[in-house]
Amino acid sequence: MQTNWQMIRDRLAEGIMRGEYAPGQRLPTEPELCRHFGIGRHSVRRAIEALAVEGKLRVEQGRGTFVETAPLIDYQIGRRTRFRQNLRDQGVAPGGDLIEAGLVPAPAAIARALDLPEGAPVHRVLTRGLADDVPINIGLSWHSADRFADFGSRRRQGEKVTDIYRTHGIADYFRRSTSILARRASPDEARLLAQHPALPVLVVQKTDVDVEGRPIGHSQGVWSAERVQFTLDTDPSPPGTG
Amino acid sequence: MQTNWQMIRDRLAEGIMRGEYAPGQRLPTEPELCRHFGIGRHSVRRAIEALAVEGKLRVEQGRGTFVETAPLIDYQIGRRTRFRQNLRDQGVAPGGDLIEAGLVPAPAAIARALDLPEGAPVHRVLTRGLADDVPINIGLSWHSADRFADFGSRRRQGEKVTDIYRTHGIADYFRRSTSILARRASPDEARLLAQHPALPVLVVQKTDVDVEGRPIGHSQGVWSAERVQFTLDTDPSPPGTG
Repeated sequence: MQTNWQMIRDRLAEGIMRGEYAPGQRLPTEPELCRHFGIGRHSVRRAIEALAVEGKLRVEQGRGTFVETAPLIDYQIGRRTRFRQNLRDQGVAPGGDLIEAGLVPAPAAIARALDLPEGAPVHRVLTRGLADDVPINIGLSWHSADRFADFGSRRRQGEKVTDIYRTHGIADYFRRSTSILARRASPDEARLLAQHPALPVLVVQKTDVDVEGRPIGHSQGVWSAERVQFTLDTDPSPPGTG
Repeated sequence: MQTNWQMIRDRLAEGIMRGEYAPGQRLPTEPELCRHFGIGRHSVRRAIEALAVEGKLRVEQGRGTFVETAPLIDYQIGRRTRFRQNLRDQGVAPGGDLIEAGLVPAPAAIARALDLPEGAPVHRVLTRGLADDVPINIGLSWHSADRFADFGSRRRQGEKVTDIYRTHGIADYFRRSTSILARRASPDEARLLAQHPALPVLVVQKTDVDVEGRPIGHSQGVWSAERVQFTLDTDPSPPGTG
């Protein structure tokens, strides 16, 4: 049988885990929590103290009690975004595993992005990206099978996209037309990302182009919103500052 | 444990989200879906109905079932992002209302972003942005009261930020250090954005700088993920294409 303060502690912890109290958000005041849960101030205070000790809440004297901000990985998106280098810059070890790879006829939207006829053969590769061995994204990518015949088999053997491009004469490439949206995770996505099913994901669609501006690959990444935020380098050096 | 129809619903929903079934595309027929998933017609029909209710599919009698075109507004983020112009470029009428404006001592994080001493007086302005009269974001902004003495009163009178900047000698300004994350909406946010409480929001933090690179304003926008996606102009013209 749980005592009052333990019940409140668990209810608050669940609210934080479910995202009902968001990171950085101020919790209702003690009198408000007393009214809300119908219990005494002593129990509320004890529950808050317990969660502060667990690192879930942060009490700021005179300001209130705040939901502790989880240390989000700061993933930088720019024209030369590279998964591994980005994570290393954050002091995080990049990793990944290939979930499946196969040859499919290009669906209409993919064909359009890659400037191919609809139904042209494309490699469809599903991967999962890790940061310090914790899943942070699921990536689905499409590449022309005519241009990159060995793409699927080499990805299956663990080769990196950048290296495969290089042997096909693509020494450098850029990111074009990135879009970002947020939505609820599907049950499969929540499972692959090992995150709470009620939490959202960030969906990033992008097309990579070679130095001539021709599309070489299209991909959709589904990122854990619990672990990652994006920062954009929208030119930190305006004219006049060099 | 999921029943058959729930599993089909989730598989179809995932296919739509991943772009395997593109917006506007006709779904395979019910008999085809039955064969494909190896289940009965009743389950397929129930899954389609559930997705139609969620607005993901549209059933047209006698024609078939189509993937609903997501009416997301494509909000472009770049160094010269302007709310009103951005929406007009999308054929959407921009609007907004001021919820509250006041003078507060700068909290630590805001002071840091604006390069001010902690506790320096700043205008704190809460607004709501509309697109065709539907709420799309809630914006909280901070501006130095020493540099822009009349900021709060002029915002209260409906003046635009760009116009206030101009009378303070700032003819042009740029966006620096944008970050984007997703989280669940708080009950207040869901209410102000008039969106379903279980749906996520996109949170955008940014600092505007003048042509000398000095910070002039910091803001946090909470965007409806149900209505908006961001596109980034990560340089569509790599070297060699002009």
